This record gives sequence, C-alpha cells and structure tokens, in this order.
Amino acid sequence: MSKKSLVTIAIHYSSYGENWQSMLQERLEGFSVRLWPDWGDLDEVDYAVVWTPPPGLLQKCSNLKAIFSIGAGVDQLLVDPDFPRQIPLVRMADAVLEEGMAEYITLAVLSLHRDLLKYLNFQRKADWHPLAQRFPKDQNVGIMGLGNLGMAANSALQPFGFQMSGWSRSKKQIKHMTTYAGMETLPDFLKTLDTLIVLLPLTDETRGFLNAETLSLLPEGANVINAARGALLDIEEARQLLDQDLLGYLWLDVHHVEPLPQDHWAWSHPRVVITPHIAAATLPGSASNFVATNILRMEQGSMPSNIVEISAGY
Amino acid sequence: MSKKSLVTIAIHYSSYGENWQSMLQERLEGFSVRLWPDWGDLDEVDYAVVWTPPPGLLQKCSNLKAIFSIGAGVDQLLVDPDFPRQIPLVRMADAVLEEGMAEYITLAVLSLHRDLLKYLNFQRKADWHPLAQRFPKDQNVGIMGLGNLGMAANSALQPFGFQMSGWSRSKKQIKHMTTYAGMETLPDFLKTLDTLIVLLPLTDETRGFLNAETLSLLPEGANVINAARGALLDIEEARQLLDQDLLGYLWLDVHHVEPLPQDHWAWSHPRVVITPHIAAATLPGSASNFVATNILRMEQGSMPSNIVEISAGY
Repeated sequence: MSKKSLVTIAIHYSSYGENWQSMLQERLEGFSVRLWPDWGDLDEVDYAVVWTPPPGLLQKCSNLKAIFSIGAGVDQLLVDPDFPRQIPLVRMADAVLEEGMAEYITLAVLSLHRDLLKYLNFQRKADWHPLAQRFPKDQNVGIMGLGNLGMAANSALQPFGFQMSGWSRSKKQIKHMTTYAGMETLPDFLKTLDTLIVLLPLTDETRGFLNAETLSLLPEGANVINAARGALLDIEEARQLLDQDLLGYLWLDVHHVEPLPQDHWAWSHPRVVITPHIAAATLPGSASNFVATNILRMEQGSMPSNIVEISAGY
Repeated sequence: MSKKSLVTIAIHYSSYGENWQSMLQERLEGFSVRLWPDWGDLDEVDYAVVWTPPPGLLQKCSNLKAIFSIGAGVDQLLVDPDFPRQIPLVRMADAVLEEGMAEYITLAVLSLHRDLLKYLNFQRKADWHPLAQRFPKDQNVGIMGLGNLGMAANSALQPFGFQMSGWSRSKKQIKHMTTYAGMETLPDFLKTLDTLIVLLPLTDETRGFLNAETLSLLPEGANVINAARGALLDIEEARQLLDQDLLGYLWLDVHHVEPLPQDHWAWSHPRVVITPHIAAATLPGSASNFVATNILRMEQGSMPSNIVEISAGY
C-alpha cells in the first residue's frame, strides 16, 4: 500500500503540537497525521493545520485541499508572499476560544466599570475611598468587529445591562445592539462610547486603524480594550491621547511586538493594563473537533465551514 | 386639619437623605415625608425608612405600621436591644442592588479565574508571563446564602459555564445548581470548591461562621469572596490559613471594622483584595419605588413583600 492511499494531515504548531497530533489521530482513524518537522513528502499532504508555518512551506504542498488556521485570525498566514491563496483557508471557530474571549472582555469591562484598578491602587495606600457607583444603563459599550468573538463578547455583556453598540464592515442586525457599518458611520459609533472593545481582524485595511484620528472621535476619557491584534493600534498615538487625558484606560492583551519588550513605556503607564496575549487560548481538545469535522465534511465532497474570504483578509 | 390626618413617613439615612425624601414625596402624593432630625411628633410616624437609626428611636414611635431597612441586611437594626420586634420589618429588594452585586461578584470571580491580580503584578515587573488558562467547566464556584443577592450572583455566573453550587439554611431547588442545606451538608458543599462566595445574612447564628474550622473544609488554595458582612468572617483565623497557603485569595468588600483601620495587616497582604464596601449601593431612585409600592399596599390593607423573619434574623 503506497502512503498516498491514506489521507494525510500535516500539523505545524509550536505549542501542544503533540496533543494536536494525538487528538486528530483519535478523531480521524485511518488518516495519516504528521507533525512538523516530519511532514515527509510535501506532495502527499492533503490538509495543513498551522499557526505560523515557515514562509513558502504551504506553497510547496502541491496537492493541498485546505489549510486550517489554529486561532481566529489568519493575518499571520497571509503575510507570507507565497501563501497559496487559491486553496480554501479555514479560520478556527471554537466554543472554547469564544468562551475565553467572553470571559476576558467581561473582566476588562467590569474592572473599568467598577473601578477595580483604582481600588487596587487605593489599597496599596491603605486608603478607604469609596467611589460613586456607575450604572450599566448609563454606560455605552461598543464592539468593533462583529465576528464570532465580537458576538461572544456582546452576549456576555448584555445581561449586565450595558448599552451595547457594534461596528462592522457590513451591516448586521443584532438583538439589543445598535449596529453601525462602514467608515462613514464611524464618528457616530464612537462619539458616545464609554468603552470601546476592539475585536477586528487584522487586514491591510485595518492595520493601524486605531490612531490619533479615529481615537479622537471617542468622548474624552473613554477606555479602549484591544484583544484582537496589536498592529490594529498605533500605540504611540494612543500614548499622546492618554497623556492629554483624552483617553481613560488602555487595556491591551495584544501588542505591536510580542513579547512586549521589557523596556517599553506601556508596562509602567498608570493607565495601561498589559496582559501577555492570553485572552483566549485555542486548546487541542475542542479545536481539533472543529478541524476533524471539517476534514470529514470535505472528504465527503462538501465545503468546510468558516472559509476565509482571502480578498477581505478574514 | 390635624397633622395626623396625613400618613407620615420618617426617613433616617446619612447619605442621599434628601434624595430619598423628594423621591418618596414624589411617589406618595399627599403623604407627609419627614427627614431626620425633623421627625416631629414620634407618635405620628406611620412608616420608618432607616439604615442605622439611633438605638431606642424606633421603640419611641408608638404607632409604627412598618420599618423599612435601606439595604439588604437588617443586622444593623436588630443589634438595638430596644428594636420593636413586633413591627413588620421589611428588607430592601432592589433590582439595582442585585445588579451591583452581580457585577461585583462576577468581577471578583473572573479576576481570580483569569489571574488578573497575578498579571497586574507581572506588569509591575515588565514580566511577559503567560499562565495556563483554566476552563470554567472545571471550576467549582459555591455561593453561601441563596437570597436575592445570592441568586443574582448565580444568574450572572452561570452563563460563563462554571460548575455552580449553593448552600443555605433551608433546601432550595435551583436550575443548574447543586444545592445543599443545613450544617450537616457543609463539608460536602465546601470540599470541592475552587471559589467560595459569601452572601449570608449576619445573624446570631452566622456571626464568625467562617473561621479556621469551616474554612479548613475548603480544598487547599481555594479563594473566598465576602461581599455580605465583615462579622461573618474571623479574619485572624483566615490570615493563618492564608499564610499556610491553605487559602488562595481572600477578596473582601466588607470588614470587621469599617472603615478598615489604616494600620490593618489586610491592606498589604499580597493575597487579600480590599474594597471599601462598594459592591452594591442602594440608590434612592429604584429603592424608593420599592418602599412606596409597599406603603401603598399596606395602606390598602395588604402585607408588604420581603418581611424579615425576626427570629431567624433575616
């Protein structure tokens, strides 16, 4: 029996690679599941499951049927000039990823809403200092980017009674949410927000989208939470707005360089929160279910779900 | 027309007293609404709306029909040896109070669950230090006290997928919650918890209830959140468990003395969070609706809702 009689799945992932291999193998009996660097003959690879493969690698797999990105974003793949753009590219849709993001965004919004960072600072000075409580019906929270993760964040925040609004490239109808679409609505979307949550995909259009010009459309003292991609935000322009008190808090899980260098000013800024890209992990358990289900679907002649629109970049 | 032809409501409250007066007056046209110290003839007072009135004051109001406590607890009233225990005493039930508590508890639970305090410490050292993510389905969160506030906390936490359990004096059936009742079930309730949330009323039975003996029933490293009353917890015994690493974090909104004295050790303990009794404020707007509705109900010959069972203390 030649190797090629098996359907071959090749994995390239730096963390949990072996877990991915065993979990996919368990779910796809009879398939050949290979882990980088042991991909063998690249022409035999039917499906690639990758996060940041070496540039040019996927182009060399001449018989690829689909590429799966581990993680909700695909920007890290599309930067490869030789990325095979004609092959179906599938973004991760994973309930665990959405759960993690819902938790992280709720934690950030409630921390700001209920002044946790201020209370922790008061505690350091043994300062008993109650602040007036704000009420969620008076708080405008906006989500930029209404994909799976933006929707998960919205569902988690709605029960608390915040006034929710959302902005995306194309218009969406979402229950209990005021929605905006397209550049011309950006000022209206931003102008009343107390807190802006950024969950946009990183594309050529959105790179550096949050800069002095756009952030100045927010009311004075508004907070910005970025849990999408660091390159969406011009951090130096944001710093100037922070230091003029035009922005309230900047809560960042993602950064223009990761890890954020030890000597970067943002670590010690009193109104910046830094977490090390931990908002929502993709874990092999549930994510490999998604990949396995889609591979089986394709083997039966159907299209996978969650295909990226390459020209849009997400 | 003698004064007594009017129904008289007398308010004693240190904060927002005037707001209470104007809001009750607005909702109860034709009633006489008096604000401390101008209660006038005490025999004319039909309803008292109070938080911490001077001991003995309520006893002197010989024609009282009901007493309303501003806030969910009534322990601060029942410590008065001359408190008129035969008069209906009504605890506040206020959606705003429940909302505030749901926010506060969710914030505390998510902060612990997602390691926010650790990340803020790493940030102080410019330390990029991702930690393994925990998943809510593996986290046991228990609520002690299943009144309005405990139920509000449960409803806020359930959507995140935590394994919820609850403990109360009398057995309750609650959807998606494992419930326990009575002292003999306490070990079973506590033994698997990752986080214990305390929302018990303060009564003779519950004073000092959380001490070395009961807290030792928790698994090693469990967190305790107290947002009910400081006197429920023996903070010195808790400190010993903390310092033996038998407890994880102690998250305290309420304290055995308030304000917590500047030189108290808890302010600077690395695994204690102190907030200054701000979890859930009663605001005159919605709370005065509750009081006004109940007064009108009594004036029409019905009983008010949310009457305290004095012998139980809540």
